[in-house]
Amino acid sequence: MSDLIRIAVDAMGGDNAPASIVEGAVMAVNESKEIMVYLTGDQEAVRKELDKYTYDADRLQIVHASEVITNEEHPAMAIHDKPDSSIAVGERMVRDGKADAFISGGSTGAVLVGGQLIVGRIRGVRRPALASIIPTDKGFSLLIDCGANVDAKPEQLLQYAQMGTIYLSNIMHIQNPEVRILNIGAEEEKGNALVQETFPLLKACSDINFKGSIEARDVPYGAADIIVCDAFAGNIVLKMYEGAASMLFKNIKAALLSTFRSKIGALLIKKSLKEKLKQFDITKYGGAPMLGLRGLVAKVHGNASSKEVKHAILQCIDYKKNDIQGKVAMAIRQEGSAD
Amino acid sequence: MSDLIRIAVDAMGGDNAPASIVEGAVMAVNESKEIMVYLTGDQEAVRKELDKYTYDADRLQIVHASEVITNEEHPAMAIHDKPDSSIAVGERMVRDGKADAFISGGSTGAVLVGGQLIVGRIRGVRRPALASIIPTDKGFSLLIDCGANVDAKPEQLLQYAQMGTIYLSNIMHIQNPEVRILNIGAEEEKGNALVQETFPLLKACSDINFKGSIEARDVPYGAADIIVCDAFAGNIVLKMYEGAASMLFKNIKAALLSTFRSKIGALLIKKSLKEKLKQFDITKYGGAPMLGLRGLVAKVHGNASSKEVKHAILQCIDYKKNDIQGKVAMAIRQEGSAD
Repeated sequence: MSDLIRIAVDAMGGDNAPASIVEGAVMAVNESKEIMVYLTGDQEAVRKELDKYTYDADRLQIVHASEVITNEEHPAMAIHDKPDSSIAVGERMVRDGKADAFISGGSTGAVLVGGQLIVGRIRGVRRPALASIIPTDKGFSLLIDCGANVDAKPEQLLQYAQMGTIYLSNIMHIQNPEVRILNIGAEEEKGNALVQETFPLLKACSDINFKGSIEARDVPYGAADIIVCDAFAGNIVLKMYEGAASMLFKNIKAALLSTFRSKIGALLIKKSLKEKLKQFDITKYGGAPMLGLRGLVAKVHGNASSKEVKHAILQCIDYKKNDIQGKVAMAIRQEGSAD
Repeated sequence: MSDLIRIAVDAMGGDNAPASIVEGAVMAVNESKEIMVYLTGDQEAVRKELDKYTYDADRLQIVHASEVITNEEHPAMAIHDKPDSSIAVGERMVRDGKADAFISGGSTGAVLVGGQLIVGRIRGVRRPALASIIPTDKGFSLLIDCGANVDAKPEQLLQYAQMGTIYLSNIMHIQNPEVRILNIGAEEEKGNALVQETFPLLKACSDINFKGSIEARDVPYGAADIIVCDAFAGNIVLKMYEGAASMLFKNIKAALLSTFRSKIGALLIKKSLKEKLKQFDITKYGGAPMLGLRGLVAKVHGNASSKEVKHAILQCIDYKKNDIQGKVAMAIRQEGSAD
């Protein structure tokens, strides 16, 4: 049993917790014999859900956590005030070497703050960053940073590019992923001060495949594997994408339901449309990793399905097997010594 | 004739120039007897287009400009190197008091640079800003700044809010327009350094209706009349909006054409969908104004239709009649003395 990959999972985080989380954990344990899952959370509530399933009890256990952090709480204060929260308990397991990874669908802010304060950075990493997987016309892109550092420095963005490259090539098996920097034009001289200072660093870095700038307009078309930016810009990309899509679909739906004729039309297009939109389902890619920590911390959506939870858990196998942490540490060290 | 509102229009700017521009100018002159339009551009090419129409020749004249600035040229260099370009000629007319406004569908960068260097700022305005009209679920919002200043200062964003308020209430006749600052969360303590420093300035300003932050997700839903941000963030909002919508429509179209059944459905929904999407047609709102200049400079889309050009020209009537320039100067002065 000593070779099992050990994953702590926040059983209390998200809209459908603990039900979907527990179901996802059971699915993962039943699918892979290589993992051991620890569900952190209220013993009684989690047990009640677990009792619904058949699974290898040696590889799926509850670690009691008496507190829960909500989305409404101030992340840093919550992490400080609730040391027995399901997030803090899970992240301490990673810190103490009792788990290789931690997955949560709870408060993004608290998971991030806990990641930095409890799990801790890999030596040499300036700032851990949240990498989101966003759907595109071609598949997906990794957008870094989406939530950790709003006023980022050029050296941080360079590290995002390096860490993202290691992550994508080892976990998603994309060879030589293309890195671009989010910008307001394709020309090298464009951009704000951050972009202009970061551009030459990315260009000079030998362990990434840097291809220049990407305009926001080309993000949905999948014009880069990895997009680096500060967390303020990353949040705008992410939220505009969500907002534009949801607003448009709302209006399209209203149009389809507006007349008898259009309602019939809607019935006829439904299947094709559904089929097409499946390509934008990113839940199969697992969680959004927080890059640069001493252990994998990944965030699943607040409304994550059991399937998404399962994928996020299974993702940890490659993370551990391919020694992402060691590879990041080495890349960062080399770049540092080259300065 | 001395009371006519005089508008210089770049006849050479945009994909459909001079044809659509000239047509739009003719439409405007025929619709309003209050205006006089000067078409700046190649005399011969413009004359050829003009000859196709019937119009009051006293109120629609050509001002010859021998050069054209393309989108590929470096804006500042082009403005410097091509003093007889249709943009520079039109902007000089505003500077010299020969025109009240200038409208162009040409290079946004060149129009902006020329606006600053040739037309010049209203005294007290720190930096002129490009305000884009973006379509929303509720109508439209004014997004400032979309292209002028990427590394903006808090005081600039405050002025954007003031100028946008004057513009919207006088030109678009929206009473007491709601101002919000683009942010990554609704809470006051969220945001990058720029947002955190700007927030209290907006809160303390008595001549705007400040309502706090807006997340990018809520932008497409029209959660603010005026959204202020630096031009880097504004560009991301604008381009993500465009990119997400165009990518989604591309895929929806592909889905509709994928089977015989869906093709029939597409025919049935076409009319309702088209009707619904009309609400997102922002060309009726005229051009994107560059706020803070001594005269109105407005940018229409590169692919502007004659209708958009017409609306942009007619928009200048209210701009002049309501003395936007004087109102901006007064608001800026008052705020300055209150410091």
